[in-house]
Amino acid sequence: MKLITEVASEAGIDERHLELYGKYKSKLSPSLWEDIKAKPDGKLVLVTAINPTPAGEGKTLTTIGLAQALNAAGVRTVAALREPSLGPCLGMKGGATGGGKSQIVPADDINLHFTGDIHAVTSAHNLLSAMIDNHIFQGNELDLNPQRIVWKRVMDMNDRSLRSIVTGLGDGNGPVRESGFQITTASEIMAVLCLCSDLSDLKKRLGRMLIGYDQQGQPVTAKALGAVEAMTALLKEAVKPNLVQTLEGTPVIVHGGPFANIAHGCSSIIGTRYALKLGEVVVTEAGFGADLGAEKFMDIKCRQAGLAPSAAVLVVTVKSLKYNGGVPKEELYNGNRVALLSGLSNMERHIENLGKFGVPVLVAINHFEGDSSSEINEVVVACRRLNVPTAVSKVWAEGGAGGLELAEELIKLLNREDQPKFAPLYEASLDIPAKISKIVREIYHGADVAFSPAAKRSLAVIDRLGLHHLQVCMAKTPYSFSDQPRLLGAPEGFTMGVRDITLSLGAGFAVVITGNIVTMPGLPARPAAEQLRIDDEGQLQGLV
Amino acid sequence: MKLITEVASEAGIDERHLELYGKYKSKLSPSLWEDIKAKPDGKLVLVTAINPTPAGEGKTLTTIGLAQALNAAGVRTVAALREPSLGPCLGMKGGATGGGKSQIVPADDINLHFTGDIHAVTSAHNLLSAMIDNHIFQGNELDLNPQRIVWKRVMDMNDRSLRSIVTGLGDGNGPVRESGFQITTASEIMAVLCLCSDLSDLKKRLGRMLIGYDQQGQPVTAKALGAVEAMTALLKEAVKPNLVQTLEGTPVIVHGGPFANIAHGCSSIIGTRYALKLGEVVVTEAGFGADLGAEKFMDIKCRQAGLAPSAAVLVVTVKSLKYNGGVPKEELYNGNRVALLSGLSNMERHIENLGKFGVPVLVAINHFEGDSSSEINEVVVACRRLNVPTAVSKVWAEGGAGGLELAEELIKLLNREDQPKFAPLYEASLDIPAKISKIVREIYHGADVAFSPAAKRSLAVIDRLGLHHLQVCMAKTPYSFSDQPRLLGAPEGFTMGVRDITLSLGAGFAVVITGNIVTMPGLPARPAAEQLRIDDEGQLQGLV
Repeated sequence: MKLITEVASEAGIDERHLELYGKYKSKLSPSLWEDIKAKPDGKLVLVTAINPTPAGEGKTLTTIGLAQALNAAGVRTVAALREPSLGPCLGMKGGATGGGKSQIVPADDINLHFTGDIHAVTSAHNLLSAMIDNHIFQGNELDLNPQRIVWKRVMDMNDRSLRSIVTGLGDGNGPVRESGFQITTASEIMAVLCLCSDLSDLKKRLGRMLIGYDQQGQPVTAKALGAVEAMTALLKEAVKPNLVQTLEGTPVIVHGGPFANIAHGCSSIIGTRYALKLGEVVVTEAGFGADLGAEKFMDIKCRQAGLAPSAAVLVVTVKSLKYNGGVPKEELYNGNRVALLSGLSNMERHIENLGKFGVPVLVAINHFEGDSSSEINEVVVACRRLNVPTAVSKVWAEGGAGGLELAEELIKLLNREDQPKFAPLYEASLDIPAKISKIVREIYHGADVAFSPAAKRSLAVIDRLGLHHLQVCMAKTPYSFSDQPRLLGAPEGFTMGVRDITLSLGAGFAVVITGNIVTMPGLPARPAAEQLRIDDEGQLQGLV
Repeated sequence: MKLITEVASEAGIDERHLELYGKYKSKLSPSLWEDIKAKPDGKLVLVTAINPTPAGEGKTLTTIGLAQALNAAGVRTVAALREPSLGPCLGMKGGATGGGKSQIVPADDINLHFTGDIHAVTSAHNLLSAMIDNHIFQGNELDLNPQRIVWKRVMDMNDRSLRSIVTGLGDGNGPVRESGFQITTASEIMAVLCLCSDLSDLKKRLGRMLIGYDQQGQPVTAKALGAVEAMTALLKEAVKPNLVQTLEGTPVIVHGGPFANIAHGCSSIIGTRYALKLGEVVVTEAGFGADLGAEKFMDIKCRQAGLAPSAAVLVVTVKSLKYNGGVPKEELYNGNRVALLSGLSNMERHIENLGKFGVPVLVAINHFEGDSSSEINEVVVACRRLNVPTAVSKVWAEGGAGGLELAEELIKLLNREDQPKFAPLYEASLDIPAKISKIVREIYHGADVAFSPAAKRSLAVIDRLGLHHLQVCMAKTPYSFSDQPRLLGAPEGFTMGVRDITLSLGAGFAVVITGNIVTMPGLPARPAAEQLRIDDEGQLQGLV
């Protein structure tokens, strides 16, 4: 590892703008923004993927490897990634810092507490929670309806026992009511942190967050609780982007990590803006597959930030394509041309969809050891047929060197003269049902949308409060274009069931809940935490 | 503020041993210990106080001011303090970084997230909590009794609604059981962090922590859950001491902050050891008054660490003495010689008690604006009569310069040839009831101890498990020597009621609970959080 001061210096960042966290991590001071804001922006490239499968696609890996490869090819590149959440690291998922020769480092630190951003979100969130119950306890001046508090508590841990709880039991312990915990990355504050443009905007957004309703059914926001300044204070460091590096010394801004279902699943706007001033190219990623991640990246993040992505890299693997073609997880190591060809329908649809945003697509075939060259060739052929550039990526095994072909294809794509023009999918002026319908028809290729009674009640509230200007944040299973996780490939004609619609007024979107969305994961029978080892010198094994 | 690199350099710490957190905070690397461990220890001075009153005594203030004064007097001095907990900062108490011209800085950062140590304790604690419920959910191989889990969850927030909760409601959300949250500083992990000698000892202690009992009534420890390595990993940075400075540039190690009732209320042993190698004198403090704080400092911290304090500074104010003499809070500004003389009984008893540990005492009269000189003189006279050195301290108004007289008296005391010999109050070989009885009779001056049925059941468990070697950690109201908060002054002849005894096996003590001990504070009607302000540049107002 280079010292982070050296990584910064190579990226053109003067040391006075660094706020070091040890020798290998740094926050970037707002003074840096003053220094660089007049520079022209680099080109923004989104790494996305086909619908995720148990085989793993390698989106983060590809983002890191591609950034290394672009630098190796002489293009000054910065990666912009999400911060790993502790809960999943210790639960099922393990670390989220790439793998093989394409990793961000120091991986253990980044996977554990990093620079404390997620802890700060937890504190700010739970301060508001405590102040809500305390407000009721101390006399309830705002006439809050204890049964209609929508603001829960959060913890960065996979703890299913906290999903549904009753609080305030015992004498003098506040109002007895049903509530629960979400994982911190599902906090609206995380979404707000990632969408705000600065501390002042952060404060305004925090104030707008809906915490519940009063006895007259009127919405009550965080501002009314008097918590907003303190919450902003708790987030004053978290709002500063973090600088780390890849194994090859490529600068990486790792900042923010909102849930990809009930939130938009992208790293912070502030971090992306810094990266765009520092790199000729910025490689970033979004959660889940392109139906969720890329759509929200374009329609929420890019729209709110005024960003226009120049290209999208769609990550596929032969295994995940076969899975989408109906092969069960256990048989993915076997060749299966028929299933592969069938699964390609999933890739083709994502390519078609990305075109609707006016963003050119490059397919990255993430190579796994043991992949057959004939199967890889089928993917190449399919891309050629669609006139979509493609390259095999071996960044896990080879680092940047294994991504040179991908980098070259990307550079060609970025330099094409006939650039399409980026535009979000839906107009802001459409009402919420029309926005939902547009996404369901044009991205998911469903036939219809069915609103549950609860969703209809929520729409009535949206009507009454005049909130149709909000963006739409789809909370849907990532495994299928539809709301049915087992409907793989490229399903059509289904009806999308909307179970409920909740309001993230600080983030600026309405969350459209389809299916059963769990915002607090549980631990598996053998949590990843059990595999961790630490020696007397503090060296870890088993986290990544 | 000096750069922390400069503060370190002046304290003889090479920059390679620093792990910076911004420009003004640093963790001290274990490599520093290797460098300094052969040096002789400085002298350890405990700052303690009479029983706390609503008037405030200024123990932290005096610790900081005295360290500044000693440095001004040419004695190389390091202060060792506890880390403020976020919950109380945002609740009732406000910041905990001193005041006036005797503060540690950067105060806002220290009061908020600091270097993330408390967040790390929260994460480690709640990982274990989640793994316990997950273990039961996944089949309960250990045959845990869900009704006898003693390990709760923690949060660094004042949130009374979480004191008593039911978890696991709903389908598939784990076992339904009663549980609750404590504030993080009440976590046994915080006590363990502060009592361990290094990472390896930390791991052993974490493994010994009692989490509950199985269906056969046998104790189950954290080790059985497979969580210990991961918990240690989460704490690997938290175990490193933090270096900051006072307003006058005196080096201060701020590390750890266990509750002062159900835990021992002192900063970390590791931090104290580092400080003793860096300073000729180390000034440190303990929670609450000397009956609780000093007793636990001597009997728990010093015994476990093999430390021998050279002196104790007992902080008094004329207001707090008058309060102990029966004057209500509102009338403390008025002169009241009779009440003052009566309240001096409290000071006298603390002086007598400290003598039982073989530690010489110096009385610091912490001067408040408006204190009458005749009242201050009464205190001086009382100390002379007892042959105890004393000095008026004006460190709030004047910083180190206002503590020079106190520093001089301390230096004289430390240089006295007839040094008493430090010894803990009770022998380790006494059984738990005998240890309790000795503290109650010799420190509290009570006549008897009455064990409740629950406490007797706990004693039976202690018998059965052979745990009489444990130290005793008294959880008692801090406001009185007795278990009755309103019994001020120097009560005698009372019976101390022991409500329960719980086991902190990792920390190495049995917690003796007298009265009603709340381990999760609540917010007041007007939380301190409401007073906080932050501007667009991130500058805070209203925290300290």
